[in-house]
Amino acid sequence: MRADVHRFALSDPSDVSGLRQAIDIGAIRPEHIVCVIGKTHGNGLVNDYTRGYLSFSLAYAIGGYLGEAPETILKRVPFVFSGGVEGVLSPHYCVFTVDPDAQGTPGRSLAIGVASTRELAVHQVGTQAQIADTAAAVREAMAKARIDRVEDVHLVQVKGPAFSAADVERALQAGKECVSTNPGELMAYGRAASALGVGAALNEIEPAFATADRVLSDFGVYSSVASISAGIEVGCNEVIVLGMSEHWSGDLRIDHEPLLDAIDLGGVTRLARRMGFAADPQLSEREAATIRAAFVKCEPQRDGTVRGRAHTMLNDGDLDRQRHIRGAVGGMVAGVLAETALFVSGGAEHQGPYGGGLIALIAEKSANGA
Amino acid sequence: MRADVHRFALSDPSDVSGLRQAIDIGAIRPEHIVCVIGKTHGNGLVNDYTRGYLSFSLAYAIGGYLGEAPETILKRVPFVFSGGVEGVLSPHYCVFTVDPDAQGTPGRSLAIGVASTRELAVHQVGTQAQIADTAAAVREAMAKARIDRVEDVHLVQVKGPAFSAADVERALQAGKECVSTNPGELMAYGRAASALGVGAALNEIEPAFATADRVLSDFGVYSSVASISAGIEVGCNEVIVLGMSEHWSGDLRIDHEPLLDAIDLGGVTRLARRMGFAADPQLSEREAATIRAAFVKCEPQRDGTVRGRAHTMLNDGDLDRQRHIRGAVGGMVAGVLAETALFVSGGAEHQGPYGGGLIALIAEKSANGA
Amino acid sequence: MRADVHRFALSDPSDVSGLRQAIDIGAIRPEHIVCVIGKTHGNGLVNDYTRGYLSFSLAYAIGGYLGEAPETILKRVPFVFSGGVEGVLSPHYCVFTVDPDAQGTPGRSLAIGVASTRELAVHQVGTQAQIADTAAAVREAMAKARIDRVEDVHLVQVKGPAFSAADVERALQAGKECVSTNPGELMAYGRAASALGVGAALNEIEPAFATADRVLSDFGVYSSVASISAGIEVGCNEVIVLGMSEHWSGDLRIDHEPLLDAIDLGGVTRLARRMGFAADPQLSEREAATIRAAFVKCEPQRDGTVRGRAHTMLNDGDLDRQRHIRGAVGGMVAGVLAETALFVSGGAEHQGPYGGGLIALIAEKSANGA
Amino acid sequence: MRADVHRFALSDPSDVSGLRQAIDIGAIRPEHIVCVIGKTHGNGLVNDYTRGYLSFSLAYAIGGYLGEAPETILKRVPFVFSGGVEGVLSPHYCVFTVDPDAQGTPGRSLAIGVASTRELAVHQVGTQAQIADTAAAVREAMAKARIDRVEDVHLVQVKGPAFSAADVERALQAGKECVSTNPGELMAYGRAASALGVGAALNEIEPAFATADRVLSDFGVYSSVASISAGIEVGCNEVIVLGMSEHWSGDLRIDHEPLLDAIDLGGVTRLARRMGFAADPQLSEREAATIRAAFVKCEPQRDGTVRGRAHTMLNDGDLDRQRHIRGAVGGMVAGVLAETALFVSGGAEHQGPYGGGLIALIAEKSANGA
Repeated sequence: MRADVHRFALSDPSDVSGLRQAIDIGAIRPEHIVCVIGKTHGNGLVNDYTRGYLSFSLAYAIGGYLGEAPETILKRVPFVFSGGVEGVLSPHYCVFTVDPDAQGTPGRSLAIGVASTRELAVHQVGTQAQIADTAAAVREAMAKARIDRVEDVHLVQVKGPAFSAADVERALQAGKECVSTNPGELMAYGRAASALGVGAALNEIEPAFATADRVLSDFGVYSSVASISAGIEVGCNEVIVLGMSEHWSGDLRIDHEPLLDAIDLGGVTRLARRMGFAADPQLSEREAATIRAAFVKCEPQRDGTVRGRAHTMLNDGDLDRQRHIRGAVGGMVAGVLAETALFVSGGAEHQGPYGGGLIALIAEKSANGA
Repeated sequence: MRADVHRFALSDPSDVSGLRQAIDIGAIRPEHIVCVIGKTHGNGLVNDYTRGYLSFSLAYAIGGYLGEAPETILKRVPFVFSGGVEGVLSPHYCVFTVDPDAQGTPGRSLAIGVASTRELAVHQVGTQAQIADTAAAVREAMAKARIDRVEDVHLVQVKGPAFSAADVERALQAGKECVSTNPGELMAYGRAASALGVGAALNEIEPAFATADRVLSDFGVYSSVASISAGIEVGCNEVIVLGMSEHWSGDLRIDHEPLLDAIDLGGVTRLARRMGFAADPQLSEREAATIRAAFVKCEPQRDGTVRGRAHTMLNDGDLDRQRHIRGAVGGMVAGVLAETALFVSGGAEHQGPYGGGLIALIAEKSANGA
Repeated sequence: MRADVHRFALSDPSDVSGLRQAIDIGAIRPEHIVCVIGKTHGNGLVNDYTRGYLSFSLAYAIGGYLGEAPETILKRVPFVFSGGVEGVLSPHYCVFTVDPDAQGTPGRSLAIGVASTRELAVHQVGTQAQIADTAAAVREAMAKARIDRVEDVHLVQVKGPAFSAADVERALQAGKECVSTNPGELMAYGRAASALGVGAALNEIEPAFATADRVLSDFGVYSSVASISAGIEVGCNEVIVLGMSEHWSGDLRIDHEPLLDAIDLGGVTRLARRMGFAADPQLSEREAATIRAAFVKCEPQRDGTVRGRAHTMLNDGDLDRQRHIRGAVGGMVAGVLAETALFVSGGAEHQGPYGGGLIALIAEKSANGA
Repeated sequence: MRADVHRFALSDPSDVSGLRQAIDIGAIRPEHIVCVIGKTHGNGLVNDYTRGYLSFSLAYAIGGYLGEAPETILKRVPFVFSGGVEGVLSPHYCVFTVDPDAQGTPGRSLAIGVASTRELAVHQVGTQAQIADTAAAVREAMAKARIDRVEDVHLVQVKGPAFSAADVERALQAGKECVSTNPGELMAYGRAASALGVGAALNEIEPAFATADRVLSDFGVYSSVASISAGIEVGCNEVIVLGMSEHWSGDLRIDHEPLLDAIDLGGVTRLARRMGFAADPQLSEREAATIRAAFVKCEPQRDGTVRGRAHTMLNDGDLDRQRHIRGAVGGMVAGVLAETALFVSGGAEHQGPYGGGLIALIAEKSANGA
């Protein structure tokens, strides 16, 4: 069983030409695709439709090869897209494949498992139900990935539902209580509850602390491998577990590191060096070429400061705080990795330390690209 | 003769409490103030009024101490403010003082000189007149600073005029020709022409290449120490030359380095290490505390790429390209310097290499802060 | 006793040239100025500094004439500025003067009274304290204006405090509870509570309904003459009561009308016609010239619709809902009045009917301008 | 031969449920669809992908009914979508059908014809080639619509190509000259040249004046029925001619009126009344229900004023001028029509008088809805 990752540039949110070419030349077999993760052109907020546009475009393309309707593909394959390519970031998508028959380089290798929760209604977002359901889905995906130890899980990518103001209003009319009536804030609650679910499943968070009352209130409670996005194009929590396992073979490995704050260059460098890159301070072009995918979560520190100096991200009525932070942290990580096709996602509530976040890298086993 | 730099946090664009306290306790004598450079809360574009607000607030405060009207201070003291504190950047201002009688630590030290061009009308922006006038003002400021060699100039900060669409329309009605009728584009022309003027004055650019026809067209022609801003609150090019000179004494020094592109972490690190900081990868808190001011120019590469990957900065109708790039490069530089109160300014036309820019640091002479 | 209103164009937020000229030619005596209300260039949100900039510029100018410090003027004269001149709206300010000795045209005339609450801390925003304090200040201002009957009050303009995320954080650290931790939402709570206070003072709202638990929840409870703004540049609720009184004389009158929803053209036309304008559909240039000031409150309907059709104002991550609604309603009102220098302000919580708002006009007594 | 128009709400840019239902119940036969015109959720600027998303969603749905690939539908059926639903505007799309066999109410009725130019490269945008090609396509579409007299044409809707900064750069590298290197400005040139082509074809503009040198310079030259949009999702100018013809039958009619400036409420009212609506000032609910589609073009006056007062639309770095103007004019028109599902489109260069624009309405023949 071998996992592989192919990254493709995205010239606009409907550009699936890279995947088409890879399939046409036989580099990817469409039936091996297990999930796609990427960054699209939109603002990454509630009214970002580029995530759905790419999802449908990919589903239409993949379905065409497999003789399936795009609606079927959308139900079967998790597409996790985060909008917002601020600053130097480059729109792209990473196609994850699993070949059950292939024998790659033997030894511990990248392992993948996917699972979903049931549908989550607007009034369930941010609640204990979302925490518990997410935890169960993580355990299921980990089992499917045949990752035996929680320490071998390096990234749990979750895509959960977002809702519009009208959805909230309808729920209220129907007598439901929502944890927030603000669509953007509701996305935050959903990400936060899902992160607690991940942490609980991986024993990073004790059960007594993975509770709804700590959601968005006790930021000392967090998972170091949870990366949660929300979007109106999904109805349940889709969970992708990535880690290392002896039951797989192949050329890829994954590792991760928490980021202590928004300018924790040391955290990025530490991970890069632990994975064998020189990173003094930047990867060489050859080294950079061995990185197949990079995932970063980050967010503006809630007290309005970074290392004691004020930032303006929380009070900006023109530019959302998530767009601010993605641009800044994206620039810093790109500086180390010599790569701008990074999955940098804001909204890191309970995903990494307070005011910080996390980084995970998938790279070829030979770090120097030789 | 001793130059000094004091940096103050800016809680809102009228917050001059830091300077007031410094004057009140005798740390700064108001008659020694020669210029102020800073970053304010606005968008950094034509409709950014935070630059003017801080200018007037400072002029009112300084004038109060000196018994002068704020209007007089505004005419006499250059205030160079760049709007836009995207991402982790922190609003602040640096007050530059010159004490003609003081004897600081002997030996080559930070030197400052200021000068201005005549008033520039909207139809002169981006023309040979702006190039020539700026070059003359740079030479005048360099002479005032008693910097003997052009290699000892490390930063030439220029603030030039910007104009609104109505100003342009009035000029057209009056039969004048403008190099652009778009207010934002006109700011770019003004920065570009001013940069060529700086380069010509410092022999970085041969006279035959410092010509209006190369403005915004031949980006192989540039200055590595020019940092140009534009704003509607000034009417001429105000020029501040910063460098090293034996004729001064004091505890501060300045150095600079070009940035090859928007993710040139190596350039930032190289400068930091040449100035004696460990920077592996980040300055320690003690080292960071010895940096008195940091200046960065940057801009989105005009072919829409960074190292071959597409960026989206040029086509974003929601978020101006300058806000994009400041956030990204600001994040990267903050990662090295462990400091977010950075003067990061977009619009680096002919200021550093194509697609890149430059960085200059003023630090205490003892790098390790001991 | 005669009240007068002078409207001046605002080319940028520091442009007080219009007032200076009026004072210099004797059209306004600076000691007669009782308040200034206007629209400035900013976004009208938390990080809008144009309100403070104009306040200080006016205070500096007026203080110069009166031999008072600007800080003294700021404390004594209410400046109520609303940021955001979307669409056709034009930045301007209206200077209200009261000449205690003058005898204008006899008969019921425009009357003005001003008063303030004590300072309001961040944790008092949106609470019963703000409701009660505002009601008391309204009664005080009404008495000062010598308006005997509540039906003769046509506009109560209130400017209350806004707070940044850092202010909120500090309050939380100090053990205070805030009604919201989101700066923008907190502004909404403050406007809402203040509106209930106005309604209570004028018997529009029964005391039992002017309670904190109805703030932002029971929109059937509202005042038809309350117009509330919030900004970081004030610390208390400044209250300006405008109405008609026999104790005054002069050439001006005021009237108002609720707006039932965001496209209630009928409401605007009804008010214009009741005041004697033809308005079929638009005022003539001569009629328009007799309008001295126009005040509009409006806001996006909270169920996401207007007359059953969806709007997108609540879910837009690029453009704040208040900027959306001001542009739309401003365009409609300008169409009737043939005038774009309108005080159109969003955030009409409990200010006029749910989903709508209100309009008030100050005009010369002879409607046709003859 | 009968033309019909069905309007559907658009909950997100992929929401084609309205059309699906209409087809499923037999209200629309998919083979009768000749074009679709609508407003989508995006910003209406270069990086607006909602237009393409809706286009593909509709093509996929229609293709499913007809057994054709979506790519085939996209080539055959013009989809003209304008992004930007500022203020009260509501996302929607109007499906135009032609039933060649049907006999509607006899007498002059709505007539439709469509045609396309060849592909237009980036360097052809804004040139004489675009003018001439557009004029030829208009004549072809008019002939297809069997509209005999140019006076009977009431709207020519054109959708032309837009290009990204990278497209422009590639053209320049290939030695081509573009009329502008700024993507947004290039859209303006394309709209302007297309408008001159429409005016020339309909004898509104004399051939000697429909020339490239007047594009964006002589605004006295314009068409009163041209409505031009641009978007990256089309490669040629798609032309839809709408008018009245005796060769058609049916229940619908169309009429139009120029708008003299951005607050020309009189123009809107005049058209409404000429079509038989009371409009004093607003249509009744019953009247409003008889309007099947409304088209408005508008733009910020280029001298920065409306009726002599300054507007801020041209200098706003946070909010594009097109978003400003659509919100304002949309609000005014909605006030008259009691309807927010309006096609309000900015960028009215040479489309109606300078600083104004135009409005066209398609309504049922019985105005009062009886």
